[in-house]
Parts: sequence; structure tokens; C-alpha cells
Amino acid sequence: MDEPFDSPALLFDLDGTLIDSVYQHVLAWYEALQSMGFLLAVWRIHRRIGMSGGLLAQALGREIGQRVTHQQAEELQKRHAAAFLKYQNEIQPLPGAADLLATLREAGIPWAIATSGRREAAAPALEKLGVLSADPVITRQEVHRAKPDPDLFLAAAKRLRVPVSRAMVVGDSVWDLLAARRAGCLGVGVLSGGYGREELQQVGAYRVYQDPADMLAHLDEIGIRRDE
Amino acid sequence: MDEPFDSPALLFDLDGTLIDSVYQHVLAWYEALQSMGFLLAVWRIHRRIGMSGGLLAQALGREIGQRVTHQQAEELQKRHAAAFLKYQNEIQPLPGAADLLATLREAGIPWAIATSGRREAAAPALEKLGVLSADPVITRQEVHRAKPDPDLFLAAAKRLRVPVSRAMVVGDSVWDLLAARRAGCLGVGVLSGGYGREELQQVGAYRVYQDPADMLAHLDEIGIRRDE
Repeated sequence: MDEPFDSPALLFDLDGTLIDSVYQHVLAWYEALQSMGFLLAVWRIHRRIGMSGGLLAQALGREIGQRVTHQQAEELQKRHAAAFLKYQNEIQPLPGAADLLATLREAGIPWAIATSGRREAAAPALEKLGVLSADPVITRQEVHRAKPDPDLFLAAAKRLRVPVSRAMVVGDSVWDLLAARRAGCLGVGVLSGGYGREELQQVGAYRVYQDPADMLAHLDEIGIRRDE
Repeated sequence: MDEPFDSPALLFDLDGTLIDSVYQHVLAWYEALQSMGFLLAVWRIHRRIGMSGGLLAQALGREIGQRVTHQQAEELQKRHAAAFLKYQNEIQPLPGAADLLATLREAGIPWAIATSGRREAAAPALEKLGVLSADPVITRQEVHRAKPDPDLFLAAAKRLRVPVSRAMVVGDSVWDLLAARRAGCLGVGVLSGGYGREELQQVGAYRVYQDPADMLAHLDEIGIRRDE
């Protein structure tokens, strides 16, 4: 009899996927932009969240029809980080997120977190999620390019020592799912970042769950067995 | 030769359709809920915006799995209004919104605004949009039930003295489009409230534009002629 096929490894996005922080990030960007005289509709910012901060600043500039200089992009990112601070305390893990990670840890299913955010920005969220120092977390600083480039997920699979074809990406944004396809991973979507189901399916999510709790209740659907 | 068919009349939702305020309303509800010990993921609040405040409070309670008493619903609405105040100054009309209304006014195309919000909550937005005191605006107080009931749109058509079958509803949420169908109006969606295109099409939007500016550039597509 052949060896059983290895269980998938899961590579999680952080904001909007495990932690309920997308809308606060959106308004922090809106406030940062407004403070520098850039006016952009809020929903357009929402649809860019999950990209690297530098790329997001450039993309937002293009939407406004103004070139954003490298210096302005740096300043925008600083102001976004400052504006986000006031929301920090109200931010909570998404339902089921801590349970999902603990369940996978107990079952010996390899998983990692791969975020476009910086390590210091991610730290409070990781603490709220009960992520341990031994759990693998890849942040912006550890790769050359963040999402929608595949580097974060490739680095995460490498850290787990699993072939990338065995890894599945779980994310709330089209940028996660685009990066997943570029990396050669299957993609699972969650609605908890505020995208519509069809938007996520259209960019390649083969399953879409409401949030981590819904995904935890349906782990068997993505090929994860806990009963062995 | 037959008389030409009358031009459509347009019935606009306010928040997310003409004014860029949805995300701020979402976080104001989140903060109000959190202050009363109710924890609900932000995206689920987003998907309820546009309903009447009372219905929204009940619906949110159901999502949490707790019954919200009438008194708690009242208190929630008060705290939402208080939390929203701090965002008031940053809120701007959506691109093209003031132009669109002015264009329709000049062309003699009948239009009205019909919002689930209360008159006093709507006032700052109406001022920013250049809405005149003679322009018809229907608010929560003037009907028995707000969206997704059709009362607001029926009242708006009546105020314009046009048959409701001649009216088209323009809105950003599935509640607008559901109320439109119940009233017997065609529905036009806009993405500026943060719903995905397919979500709006699925509930009956026969056209979806990015925002009021995009709609203004394509008025001919919905049967409005300005050259006569």
C-alpha cells in the first residue's frame, strides 16, 4: 500500500483572517491620507488592505491620480501607524482564531503566519491570539517583497520545511489569494476581512468560510484529519 | 406617434451611496457594542449597515446569540450616535455625488434622498452635498418602517408624485436593493459602501457603478437623457 499523502500545511494571513483589525486599518489609512491632503474614498482603501504598506501607498496615489514620492510613502506609513494606535485596544481576535491555531498545534498539523505587516505592528495581535514564541511567523522584514508577491508564503513553507505544493494559504483578501496562486498553493478564503464571497472565489479561493470558527468546524473539507 | 416614455426618477440612499460614511458608522457600532459588553466581528456589522437602527440592533443581538431588549437597543443607538460624532469632521461626499445631484436638478430629472437615518443625523451630510431645503429628503421619522422595508422609497416616490414603477433606487447595500424590489423599483448598485459587485447583482442590481462619479458618466445607460 502507498504511504498516505501528507496532511496539508496551513499558511495564515493575520489581519482580517485571524485578527479583527481590517476596518481599523482602513480608517487609519484614510486619516493618514487626509492629514497629508490626499482624499480617497474609504472603500478603495479597503480593497487595497493586505498589500505591503509601500505598494499600498503607491497604489493609493495612483487612484488619486497623483504620484506619491518615496518620501511621501514613508511619511504616509508613519502616519498610518500613529493613527492605528488609537484603535489598538479595541481590536480582538476573530471568533475561533485562537482555538483553530491551538487545535492545529495539538494535532501536529504544520502551520505558520505570514503577514505583510511589520513584526512590531503584528506583536499585539500575536499575543492576543496566544501565538507562542516557537510558532513560525513571517513578517514584512523577512522577505524582499510582501503580498501580492508570493515571497511571504514561500518563506513560510520553507520555515515549516514543507514543499510549497503541500501548503494551503488562508486569507481574507484578493492579495492573499493572488500571492497563493503565484506561490503554487491552494487558497482558502474567509469573509472576516469584509470582501464578498464571490470576489474571493473569483481570484481562486476553492473554499470560503465565514471566519476561523467556521473553518475550524469544517477542517475535514480541506483535507485535514484529526482522528489519526 | 406615442408620447415618449417618461424619464426615470431616481431615489438615492445616503450613507455609502452619496456620502462616504459607511466605515465610520461600522466602527461606531462596533465601539457602541463593545462598550455594552457585546462582542461582534466588524465585517458582520458592515453587512447590516443600511438597515434601520432598531432592526440592526436586534439583528446584531441575534448574531451574538443574545436577545437585545428594547431598552438595550435604544441605548445601543444612543452610544452609536455618540461614537459616530468623533468621525463627523473627516466625512466627505463621495466623488461626483454633489455633481450628480446638481446635474439631475438642472436637467429637471426628479430625484429624492431616502435614508434609514434620522433627520438630525443626516443634516451634516446633506449640507456637504449641497442639498437645498427644497430638495425632497425622506428620513426614518417619516415612515413606519425603514429598510429593508419599502416604505422609504414608496414615500419618496409619492413626494415626487411619480408612479413607483418609474422610480429607480440607487444604493450601496443589499438592504437598499431588497427594499427597491419590494417597492417595485429597478435597482442600481454602487460599490462605494464596500460591498462586492456580485453581492449587489445577486440581490437584483441591474447595473453596478463604482461611485456617483462613475454613474454620472454613464447616465445614458440607465435611460436618462440630458440632451432634450
